Parts: sequence; structure tokens; C-alpha cells
Amino acid sequence: MKARVHVTLKNGVLDPQGKAVHHALQGLGFAGVNDVRQGKFIELELDGSDVEKARAEVKEMCEKLLANTVIEDYSIELA
Amino acid sequence: MKARVHVTLKNGVLDPQGKAVHHALQGLGFAGVNDVRQGKFIELELDGSDVEKARAEVKEMCEKLLANTVIEDYSIELA
Repeated sequence: MKARVHVTLKNGVLDPQGKAVHHALQGLGFAGVNDVRQGKFIELELDGSDVEKARAEVKEMCEKLLANTVIEDYSIELA
Repeated sequence: MKARVHVTLKNGVLDPQGKAVHHALQGLGFAGVNDVRQGKFIELELDGSDVEKARAEVKEMCEKLLANTVIEDYSIELA
């Protein structure tokens, strides 16, 4: 089974990486960009086919390793 | 308008960051993980409401800045 995890900074947390991308886009002439936020995208290939078990396990991975839940949110998609 | 861009390493390109996450997950006892790939997730807030124009512009941003198309693929979602 495949799991797709998005890890994004919470609203209100400064995103220097996004700011740098925004600035670079403006330098390249892309004037119509108002904001850029950069996050992480993690694809996991998992054993088994029990969706609910997989979701619980990936949630635990996010809490323990993949996301810093003080400043980051995560979302999980399974396919 | 919001654009969501996923930038992922092409198949066959080594992903040391994904390998490190995989190794760390195994160290934490998550034995059912077969592979991990890590990519980038970029959210852009754009002016205007013309979807096709926005898609063309974001594609150009990907080609010029957001992705290294030698080793990375990108996909664009607009909402």
C-alpha cells in the first residue's frame, strides 16, 4: 500500500524557505505571486492491505518522526 | 487562486533523504515500511482567476526555478 504524507508549516509560523522562493520568483519576473509556502511531501511504500491499520501506523510515524507537531501540520492519504 | 506543486525525484534517482527517513523509521520499530521517497510540496497564492493562464505560469516557474527537471518531476494542481 502507498501512503502520501504532506507536512506543512502551521499558519503563522515563519517560512524562510517559502520567502526565498517567493523572492526568487519575483526576481525572475513572476509578479502575480502573492505568497509561497514550502512543505515536505513523503511517499511511503507499506506492507499489508489494512487501510485503517496503515493509517494509524503512518499517524504514529508522523507524530514521532516525520513532522514537528509544535510548528507543523501533517495530512495522510492512502492508496 | 491557489496552486499546489509537488516536486519529486524521478524513478531511479537516488534519494538519500528518503533513505535516512526509512532508516530512522526502522530504528523506531516501524518494520512494515518497504520504501520512502521524499519530495517537496510548494503552495503558491496567485493573482487572477484564469486557470489555464495560471497553469501555464506555474509550469514556467517549475521549469525555471522550482524543479530541477534533469532529476525531478513536478505536478501542478490548481484550486
